[in-house]
Amino acid sequence: MPHTPGPTAAVISRLQSALPHAAVITDPTRLATYDCDGLLHYRVTPAVVVLATDAEQVQLAVRCCSDAGVPFVARGSGTGLSGGALPHADGVLIVMSGFRTIHEVSADDQRAVVDPGVINLQVSQAAAPVGYYYAPDPSSQQICTIGGNVAENSGGAHCLKYGFTANHVLSIDVITPDGEAVTLGQRAPDAPGYDVMGAFVGSEGTLGIATSVTVRLLRRPASVHTLLAGFRSTDEAGAAVSAVIGAGILPAAIEMMDALAIEAAEAAVACNYPAGAGAVLVVELDGPDAEVEHEASQVERLCRDNGAFEIRVAADDAERQAIWRGRKSAFAAVGRISPDYIVQDGVIPRTALSEVLHEMKQLADERGIRVANVFHAGDGNLHPLVLFDETIPGQGELAEELSGAILDLCLSHGGSITGEHGVGFDKAPHMPKMFSADDLDTMQLVRCAFDPGGISNPGKIYPTPRLCGEVPGKRKAAHPLQQTGQADIF
Amino acid sequence: MPHTPGPTAAVISRLQSALPHAAVITDPTRLATYDCDGLLHYRVTPAVVVLATDAEQVQLAVRCCSDAGVPFVARGSGTGLSGGALPHADGVLIVMSGFRTIHEVSADDQRAVVDPGVINLQVSQAAAPVGYYYAPDPSSQQICTIGGNVAENSGGAHCLKYGFTANHVLSIDVITPDGEAVTLGQRAPDAPGYDVMGAFVGSEGTLGIATSVTVRLLRRPASVHTLLAGFRSTDEAGAAVSAVIGAGILPAAIEMMDALAIEAAEAAVACNYPAGAGAVLVVELDGPDAEVEHEASQVERLCRDNGAFEIRVAADDAERQAIWRGRKSAFAAVGRISPDYIVQDGVIPRTALSEVLHEMKQLADERGIRVANVFHAGDGNLHPLVLFDETIPGQGELAEELSGAILDLCLSHGGSITGEHGVGFDKAPHMPKMFSADDLDTMQLVRCAFDPGGISNPGKIYPTPRLCGEVPGKRKAAHPLQQTGQADIF
Repeated sequence: MPHTPGPTAAVISRLQSALPHAAVITDPTRLATYDCDGLLHYRVTPAVVVLATDAEQVQLAVRCCSDAGVPFVARGSGTGLSGGALPHADGVLIVMSGFRTIHEVSADDQRAVVDPGVINLQVSQAAAPVGYYYAPDPSSQQICTIGGNVAENSGGAHCLKYGFTANHVLSIDVITPDGEAVTLGQRAPDAPGYDVMGAFVGSEGTLGIATSVTVRLLRRPASVHTLLAGFRSTDEAGAAVSAVIGAGILPAAIEMMDALAIEAAEAAVACNYPAGAGAVLVVELDGPDAEVEHEASQVERLCRDNGAFEIRVAADDAERQAIWRGRKSAFAAVGRISPDYIVQDGVIPRTALSEVLHEMKQLADERGIRVANVFHAGDGNLHPLVLFDETIPGQGELAEELSGAILDLCLSHGGSITGEHGVGFDKAPHMPKMFSADDLDTMQLVRCAFDPGGISNPGKIYPTPRLCGEVPGKRKAAHPLQQTGQADIF
Repeated sequence: MPHTPGPTAAVISRLQSALPHAAVITDPTRLATYDCDGLLHYRVTPAVVVLATDAEQVQLAVRCCSDAGVPFVARGSGTGLSGGALPHADGVLIVMSGFRTIHEVSADDQRAVVDPGVINLQVSQAAAPVGYYYAPDPSSQQICTIGGNVAENSGGAHCLKYGFTANHVLSIDVITPDGEAVTLGQRAPDAPGYDVMGAFVGSEGTLGIATSVTVRLLRRPASVHTLLAGFRSTDEAGAAVSAVIGAGILPAAIEMMDALAIEAAEAAVACNYPAGAGAVLVVELDGPDAEVEHEASQVERLCRDNGAFEIRVAADDAERQAIWRGRKSAFAAVGRISPDYIVQDGVIPRTALSEVLHEMKQLADERGIRVANVFHAGDGNLHPLVLFDETIPGQGELAEELSGAILDLCLSHGGSITGEHGVGFDKAPHMPKMFSADDLDTMQLVRCAFDPGGISNPGKIYPTPRLCGEVPGKRKAAHPLQQTGQADIF
């Protein structure tokens, strides 16, 4: 039985007296099931779990934490890949997956109002009868929650054309870290004042907890065209991607898989991709029939011009599913060809694709480690899968080291340490490679504004959390929130 | 000669000794030319003007202000319509219009890197040779600056399809109110950490001054199709707008003008719009040829189905310009039919268009005042022009009162007090009608994080600026930036 410090024990008993019996979990066996998210190799058991089903319960739990200075972490379905929902050992884990009613689906206003625990795919399912859908489609969309999507600013294969979660959220009701209920954004476009909602989306749980999300719905496209093109090499496939984008065509998705990823997908789901391909592209176009037809012929030509030796077009939904099956199974499929693997997530400018893939292969070869590549080629969002065998002494460490070196490679080409999986706990140490101390301070000043006590998902994003009291030295005023007399002269 | 308080006098002499002679203006006659922006009816002469031409000069000026606790206001071309660049009587006005080099235009990376004083239209002109353009197009695009666009999150007729400034900025170098240089955002998509850049865009000069802006460029569309449709009434035209959007067509622009606005435009530029029209729509479609052709026939049919009695399609660029001339001249043109007018800027859900226009007419009729309507119909962004004659006693006040009542009307339909002109000085008193005290406090906490002294464009956005020291009471900690011991347990 872990030691529970005084303030946390007091919070637990306050939660137990204020919430329904079943909503507060303290049994160690049950607590242990919440000890990690999708990033399995960090594990921390929380002191207590609250299963929240409405905004009042969330507010109450946050108030208890705020009053006692005890940390809390919100968690949706726990599908995150950066340890963003890793619990705090002395803190409260607020589980949102039971807070899941769809309150409104309006075709006229092209929006839906949903609880944070609603599953991503259910929003599109609810909107389908009126001809609409919710665009951001992370690979985990059958299980991940809208609240988690907001926290991570989730992307997906179709974000090339349609943008990330931030582009599809109109308004969020939030419980701030001191337990206040505020509304960020508005349902009409371009709200006045600061775009605080924009900063909240992607803040990975460090600025509070969303309790209601109004999302934009898009009309389902009249036509969808999916093609699979086989190339001899990733160089050829990369050149085809550049040619398509350079021609002014914006496909809904352009996904690339390299030979090793194809091998894994074949082993797992027998997707029957072109034999002997060194790389495949999955290109999906959507829109009005006339536009899709016109662009489809251009895409085919550009693929052939750049070396595609086989092109297959899905004739119907079943064939479309078959093409996507290989791509969507790829992460899990590498389990067929390697006992262990790390899913990396980095971004590079699309124009550096070919160069980065070559340098990555060199880094991998130097270490005697295999890397499979599956990625959103259109926006340069790589997902290298670093394959290793934990039973071979030192290989786990070597894979970790290579995984880090791949991020450095992305950065050296003007890219980023994460595309869509978030910083969370896992990538916090890499932040200073990308941001100057002043840049990070500026972000942390915003955090301190919302959460001076640092109780909302502490230990995430920032490598060395600055004491809030330290930062203002840089902002000059001895007491930074004390306004000078000058300010209200006007 | 106005009284200059001690700290301001000290700042002036420090600026004079550190900057080139011609860069510091103190001559009262020259200072008076900077006493307002595009909102002419508030005027304040600044204590001193600095004409900045590079980031070092901006940083120096801000540092002088920060050290002395003296307010500063940044100004581009001064075309804003909400008094956002209204100077501070005891403060420094930093004029950015001479800080205007275009540093990079890259077709491969689809971006441009520009100084804040670069004129909006010049970005598109610089990108035209490589087939690209910068999408946000405020009506003032021939004169307004990119820095001002960032401050106001500027929109324009084509923002229906392409989004506001916030959707087109990748990265901004900023001098924070304490004189630090930081970079917000990044050039690759989806930067980790908070989207502080997103909060900066539209912060109306209250979080610091942009010194370099990296914008996204879009490929010029293969085809542009512009049509003008005449209707008997705004009801018919409004129904056509809903029908077009409801059909899943997203035009680059849908603009509406009512009878009075048409009358003004005819008087000013003889645009020869359909005779007897109670409303006209200007609809522009752009994209691949096949898409545009397909959608154009649908739009024509939907306009006719909803009562259009005349439809004209621009056969070439000259005819396109002629159609747009009437729309673009509309604001200035009302000077032909009324000695004085107020340009209002409100937003409503598109579905409430017809109802709001009727209620607005009733409010105007009750007061015996005429209102002309010119607006971005596609996204419900109204620009009612309230016409009056200042020489008639009481009519100016009555027009102001009506203008405010129109905002209340927008709010009562779930809309907003501003679409694209900003809050500035003019609309600060309306903010509490739209936001709760907690909502406003949350925004001001962000402001305090950047600008604890409240020296960066004070008196704008917030009706009753809270002392920064007051707000944290709501955030509980006695010293809000003092982190509790709990936070670094992890």
